[in-house]
Amino acid sequence: MFEVSISLSGEKFTLPTKEETLAERKRLVQLAKNHKNLGREIAVVQGLGFVGVVMAAVIADAQNDDGQSHYFTVGIQRPSVRSYWKIPIINSGRTPIESEDPEVPQIIQRTVLEKKTFVATWVEDFYELADIVVVDVQLDARKKGLGNADEADVDLQGFRNAIRTIGRYVNPNALILIETTVPPGTTNHVALPILEEEYEKRGLNLDKFPPLLGHSYERVMPGKNYVGSIRDYHRTFAAVNSQAENLTQRFLENVLNTREFPLKKLNAPTASEIAKVLENSYRATNIAFIYEWTLFAEDIGINLFEVIDSVKVRTGTHDNMMYPGIGVGGYCLTKDPCLANWASKSIFNRKQPLNFSIQAVDINDLMPLHTFALVKDVFEGEIRGKKIAILGASYLNDVGDTRNSPTETLYDALSKNNAKPAVHDPYLLEWTERPDIPFMTELDDVLKNADGVVFAVKHKHYLDLEPDFVLDRATRPPRIIDAFNILNDIKIRRYKEAGCEVRGVGKGHIQSL
Amino acid sequence: MFEVSISLSGEKFTLPTKEETLAERKRLVQLAKNHKNLGREIAVVQGLGFVGVVMAAVIADAQNDDGQSHYFTVGIQRPSVRSYWKIPIINSGRTPIESEDPEVPQIIQRTVLEKKTFVATWVEDFYELADIVVVDVQLDARKKGLGNADEADVDLQGFRNAIRTIGRYVNPNALILIETTVPPGTTNHVALPILEEEYEKRGLNLDKFPPLLGHSYERVMPGKNYVGSIRDYHRTFAAVNSQAENLTQRFLENVLNTREFPLKKLNAPTASEIAKVLENSYRATNIAFIYEWTLFAEDIGINLFEVIDSVKVRTGTHDNMMYPGIGVGGYCLTKDPCLANWASKSIFNRKQPLNFSIQAVDINDLMPLHTFALVKDVFEGEIRGKKIAILGASYLNDVGDTRNSPTETLYDALSKNNAKPAVHDPYLLEWTERPDIPFMTELDDVLKNADGVVFAVKHKHYLDLEPDFVLDRATRPPRIIDAFNILNDIKIRRYKEAGCEVRGVGKGHIQSL
Repeated sequence: MFEVSISLSGEKFTLPTKEETLAERKRLVQLAKNHKNLGREIAVVQGLGFVGVVMAAVIADAQNDDGQSHYFTVGIQRPSVRSYWKIPIINSGRTPIESEDPEVPQIIQRTVLEKKTFVATWVEDFYELADIVVVDVQLDARKKGLGNADEADVDLQGFRNAIRTIGRYVNPNALILIETTVPPGTTNHVALPILEEEYEKRGLNLDKFPPLLGHSYERVMPGKNYVGSIRDYHRTFAAVNSQAENLTQRFLENVLNTREFPLKKLNAPTASEIAKVLENSYRATNIAFIYEWTLFAEDIGINLFEVIDSVKVRTGTHDNMMYPGIGVGGYCLTKDPCLANWASKSIFNRKQPLNFSIQAVDINDLMPLHTFALVKDVFEGEIRGKKIAILGASYLNDVGDTRNSPTETLYDALSKNNAKPAVHDPYLLEWTERPDIPFMTELDDVLKNADGVVFAVKHKHYLDLEPDFVLDRATRPPRIIDAFNILNDIKIRRYKEAGCEVRGVGKGHIQSL
Repeated sequence: MFEVSISLSGEKFTLPTKEETLAERKRLVQLAKNHKNLGREIAVVQGLGFVGVVMAAVIADAQNDDGQSHYFTVGIQRPSVRSYWKIPIINSGRTPIESEDPEVPQIIQRTVLEKKTFVATWVEDFYELADIVVVDVQLDARKKGLGNADEADVDLQGFRNAIRTIGRYVNPNALILIETTVPPGTTNHVALPILEEEYEKRGLNLDKFPPLLGHSYERVMPGKNYVGSIRDYHRTFAAVNSQAENLTQRFLENVLNTREFPLKKLNAPTASEIAKVLENSYRATNIAFIYEWTLFAEDIGINLFEVIDSVKVRTGTHDNMMYPGIGVGGYCLTKDPCLANWASKSIFNRKQPLNFSIQAVDINDLMPLHTFALVKDVFEGEIRGKKIAILGASYLNDVGDTRNSPTETLYDALSKNNAKPAVHDPYLLEWTERPDIPFMTELDDVLKNADGVVFAVKHKHYLDLEPDFVLDRATRPPRIIDAFNILNDIKIRRYKEAGCEVRGVGKGHIQSL
């Protein structure tokens, strides 16, 4: 039986056989030796997901002032049907992830084909040759439905397995650097004991060979500056002992732009882990804070966007105030407070939940239901059978990233209430998380005979959309819902002149336009 | 019966008689005529409290490019026993408020004695001569105990009375500008109807004489830049009609530094009112957010200050993150979310409270009880009879402002539990809100035989305090509580070497120092 892994663009790759794995291992060992002979160290990146693949390329791209590469980088991805295809794609010099950043394909092409300092593989026992192992495996918090963030669960099994495999094979002089966003305490209380156990099984004396384990989180941001958000940005790190601290610092100085963005060293991995979930919880809370003011402003006829703009002039204290919107998506703000809360309970046995941060997650998760309420309101409750065009499925503007997309929640609420939602997003190639939701990439298709139009994402396509283009295609007059301040007052007036009922999240002033 | 009003420094002033009031009125009318003849407009400021007195001086100080004063400014204060003394003090060219800003006494002296453009008075029917009336009366939210912010009540009676008096006397062509922080909706739904009622009683046709009413809030900040925080900072405004809008804009451009800080015009006074309470609710929420992370960090041995510092490098998104501390005081963050919540209920009949913002107030109000818990912890519960020196009563560092001071809550908790709290603050002249709490201004007094020392406020005096100075005076070894990151690790180590048990808010790492 030959299992096949299919890439996003449809290329098929047969999963490797045992013989191929043996051959691959030989090939890698030889490659590693060659690079060692050139004075390079061997860096292994475990996990070629959203972060891992770019981090691996950044490591492979790093060079000293003489133009010599610091590292030969091996990216490891398990040979599963879902993900194996990434390996041959990378090894052919192509990017396995879609990105609006032109540097993503460039850096992969450069490191794989030109510098030949980056290869991808599925061979796991290659760790023994590594001088540095960077852990970028996926770690998720699983919520039990919306509005229930306190009960979110974290399954560390995959992470434990990855650490155990490393502990089994790694050279004990190598640095193991965790980059994954983990529940605080994971480095010290989960990873370290596993490594110690595996080292002892291997007969290593822990006094002589304490695991050299560190934590340093990335602050990756999808979009046009994807590579820069990893390489050219502030980094915090910490490690379990001073030897690991020094190795971590040296490694990060080699691969990141630490001249412009000096490293921040914290005293304990738990502090570094907390920093990551704290900063995302802060952001999530700042978004949730605005929600009750959004409802207030709508009820009393105020444009909250205008109000917030007037407040944001206070730089240093108020300029990061968030705007009303359809909701919060992505991989960080939706789960990181849950990781912290879970760690508090399950790693540190604390009884008190991180109430405020968890409430923020709940408010944000449920936020798309307010846009749903506006849809119902604008149809006076009669949404059965109505075609509702939802413009935007991505959770961020001008990228095609659907992870935890608020549109998902809105779509489900509309479907459940027998409306006919139709989703459009010009950036979407596939909706990985929700293959059951059909989506369109042509505006003509989604607007045709639409009874309602929800402006959901601030893609430039929607900001540029002229009312008459919409009016010409939709059922006349369509109901309009502006869920993210995508329509200015001039456009709203045009829709109203055409007889459209219009609502807007946080835009109570629409009634008086 | 002659009633007497006594100033902060002890000067006594007899309240004015009817005859004196008549004479004062004549004097003011003559003064106003003289100034009108010089081409000046008459500005009246209602309320000479914390904001009003400096705002009045700023108006009186304003001049055009030729050095001509724009306004003759009359500050009105009711002749109560509590406040009458301010009038003769101001008229003698002295400041009635304590401030660390040297410009406060200067601008009052300059406008009263040199430019002679500022007088204070108690005569209320002077409004008829005003071209502009600025309303700076006090308006408070009264909480029913700590942790109960949702039930806070707002008594608008004093505010209504002030507006009614203005409506009774004011020239209908004059601008009435509300500066007081009010519950959103107050300008349109409280002040405007009162003015209309009074105008109609006076036989004025409202079509011809619609009240010219605006709202523009200050962002005053106690401290070394007190005058600048009123004059040289961003201003938002709105008004009930376009004529009032224009008058407000012109007035603010005349008196404030709008070249460097351009005005922000909003479309409705309710929007401007919301902006003010929103920005303070945001700040309050950002403080409350940190609280649960403070407890988490203490429980798991982390220094949260170090963590926050590492996150604040993210300018534009995270650099306004707040630090752990003893609590929140002052006049704005403690009440403004309550004003908003009250308006939502009582002006707009909304059922849904501003939950998140109100919770923030409750968390912040109760925060000093965590410092109390640390005091109990460091004494293993045995605080009866223990002298606890509390260093700092002000709610802000390096000023003497005790409004809603967190020290108050800590003091009360210690007293109720039979400890002997002793409060020190080098900036305090009187504790207006709590005359029942004795305070000291000499460190020797408060530290002498202290069993415990709470570092409560980041006054430079405490940042500079050497452990040995404390150890030489306190009971040896005293218990030390650092409630605001006032002690660095070197000092904490010194205390620990001397045998002190030390705790710190948000400083879980102390145990491992």
